[in-house]
Amino acid sequence: MEFELVGMPDEAVRQAAEERHARLTKPRGSLGRLEQLGAWVAACQGMCPPRPIERPRVVVFAGDHGIAAHGVSAYPSEVTAQMVANFQAGGAAVNVLAGVAGATVRVVDMSVAVDTTAGDRKVRQSSGSIDREDALTEDEVEAAVAAGRAVADEEVDSGTDLLVVGDMGIGNTTPAAVLVAAVTGSEPVAVVGRGTGIDDRAWMRKTAAIRDALRRARPVTADPVALLRTSAGADIAAMAGFLAQAAIRRTPVVLDGVVSGAAALVAEELAPGARAWWVAGHRSTEPAHTLVLEQLDLEPLLEMSMRLGEGSGATAAIPLLTMAVRILTDMATFEDAGVTEREDPA
Amino acid sequence: MEFELVGMPDEAVRQAAEERHARLTKPRGSLGRLEQLGAWVAACQGMCPPRPIERPRVVVFAGDHGIAAHGVSAYPSEVTAQMVANFQAGGAAVNVLAGVAGATVRVVDMSVAVDTTAGDRKVRQSSGSIDREDALTEDEVEAAVAAGRAVADEEVDSGTDLLVVGDMGIGNTTPAAVLVAAVTGSEPVAVVGRGTGIDDRAWMRKTAAIRDALRRARPVTADPVALLRTSAGADIAAMAGFLAQAAIRRTPVVLDGVVSGAAALVAEELAPGARAWWVAGHRSTEPAHTLVLEQLDLEPLLEMSMRLGEGSGATAAIPLLTMAVRILTDMATFEDAGVTEREDPA
Repeated sequence: MEFELVGMPDEAVRQAAEERHARLTKPRGSLGRLEQLGAWVAACQGMCPPRPIERPRVVVFAGDHGIAAHGVSAYPSEVTAQMVANFQAGGAAVNVLAGVAGATVRVVDMSVAVDTTAGDRKVRQSSGSIDREDALTEDEVEAAVAAGRAVADEEVDSGTDLLVVGDMGIGNTTPAAVLVAAVTGSEPVAVVGRGTGIDDRAWMRKTAAIRDALRRARPVTADPVALLRTSAGADIAAMAGFLAQAAIRRTPVVLDGVVSGAAALVAEELAPGARAWWVAGHRSTEPAHTLVLEQLDLEPLLEMSMRLGEGSGATAAIPLLTMAVRILTDMATFEDAGVTEREDPA
Repeated sequence: MEFELVGMPDEAVRQAAEERHARLTKPRGSLGRLEQLGAWVAACQGMCPPRPIERPRVVVFAGDHGIAAHGVSAYPSEVTAQMVANFQAGGAAVNVLAGVAGATVRVVDMSVAVDTTAGDRKVRQSSGSIDREDALTEDEVEAAVAAGRAVADEEVDSGTDLLVVGDMGIGNTTPAAVLVAAVTGSEPVAVVGRGTGIDDRAWMRKTAAIRDALRRARPVTADPVALLRTSAGADIAAMAGFLAQAAIRRTPVVLDGVVSGAAALVAEELAPGARAWWVAGHRSTEPAHTLVLEQLDLEPLLEMSMRLGEGSGATAAIPLLTMAVRILTDMATFEDAGVTEREDPA
């Protein structure tokens, strides 16, 4: 599997955006993080002022997980396919949040346990139970990463200007926790979380499953494709390919919670430097997500104690990015507005 | 000055919203703070599901401050009137943010040092220099608070469903800091901040001005109207009346930074319980703002290191409220979507 080199957002354009910020009718730096965000989008686009964000897109990768049979989730696996239908009908949380944010939602069935009508890129049904077998075969992991890359290409080619990556899959925080523990060198107890809201007994089962899966993951941690094959699933492997390819295609991405975060850790291994094209939409309540943010050195935009997945936390942050860009495109300069500049320019 | 009693948001409706959240296609509580926000708006409206937020409004109270002549700001007072014109022309940061958030902006000149075309409610030009004289006369403070109340009534009567309070006024973080220090019993050094971005010498002048003004404010701290007269200005007095009246009219308000926060502290004294109708849009970098949030027991929605005023931080948070309400109005229930509920309902 070959990845092109990842470029960097344009530093000269970022500086031009900062200079433009200094000419807008507000004290320099007074919009704080919004100024940095706007300059980052400009640098990703390679132009200042940037183009307004007009076609944001949420891509939800769906898949089931063999490990779910071990009682690591509060919900049965059948919910994954039901939620795929719910996304398609527009009734899920991410649809509603996207509607307010001016974004559209695409769901990609990579490995749901039953057939759905979102399966154009589907690699298999569910995954191996990662506590005792590989999630995927070598062919399957190649196909899943390639599918994620193809989805990123389709989105960029059709004019999407901001990507959000989301996940849907009962049991998927277990492989995510394993990937995070493997990449960050953490213990199972540091990465296990309540997922959809498990009780104490399920928490013990989940911790044991992570411990056993981690034993199988550790030997292949240095090889990102082997790690995805051993411990991920086609959905997470596709997300990793998607994130790497979006960076290669110079397109900004808003990361969501622990599942997209786990995929991001691996994507950064597949395509070093990719993280320069990502912003963290929020900090979820899953403990492993904080490890992801530290490892990628990303500061989340929102801290709303969200833990739904679907791209929901990232989608809630889209308006901040839209606003950050509009500040650069629409605000008056001191000169335009006839406003006096400060007496002692800092 | 008489204020009607402030009622509370409807607790039964809040509970109904929480029960509705449990029937929507997501794990219970998984949208975290968004669920609490939606339930709060429903409780404010007294109905569940709530009405979507469709007419949010940012009201910016503008005024100059006599203390600005002491060199406590990085900008000259003439900027206040220039920015009023900038708001009216749509070129300021808050206009741009409001555009993305689907909100409109109204600017109210309470006490700008020169005439503007936003002066229907104007009480006077500028204010007394609060380090050595009262900001306002008794008649002026009465008129300013009444004007703020009248603006709130106008907004509520014309169908505004979410209010944002903003400020514009060179030098206004100095009276704000004095009010915060007086109400919270803090020392000048704990409330002084960089405002629009002052240098160290201006910081020393500002600290001295706060110290002197606080000496005049302490004796009247227990009387909120006298405190506004002594240490505020017509803009901040109007904001306090506006905030108290919005609560009396059962209308949710998003607070902005330290200036609206200082007004909120006094409004809570004028109309006890008013804070139940407010949410903190963000935490600004002004140190006194954190004292406000602690005193009012409000947790900010955003922490973006913003310090512009104008209502900008609060306006940036509007989409989170819009989303929170849309979750309650637009999401599918488990029953609607045919999604299986959890096996061990928590």
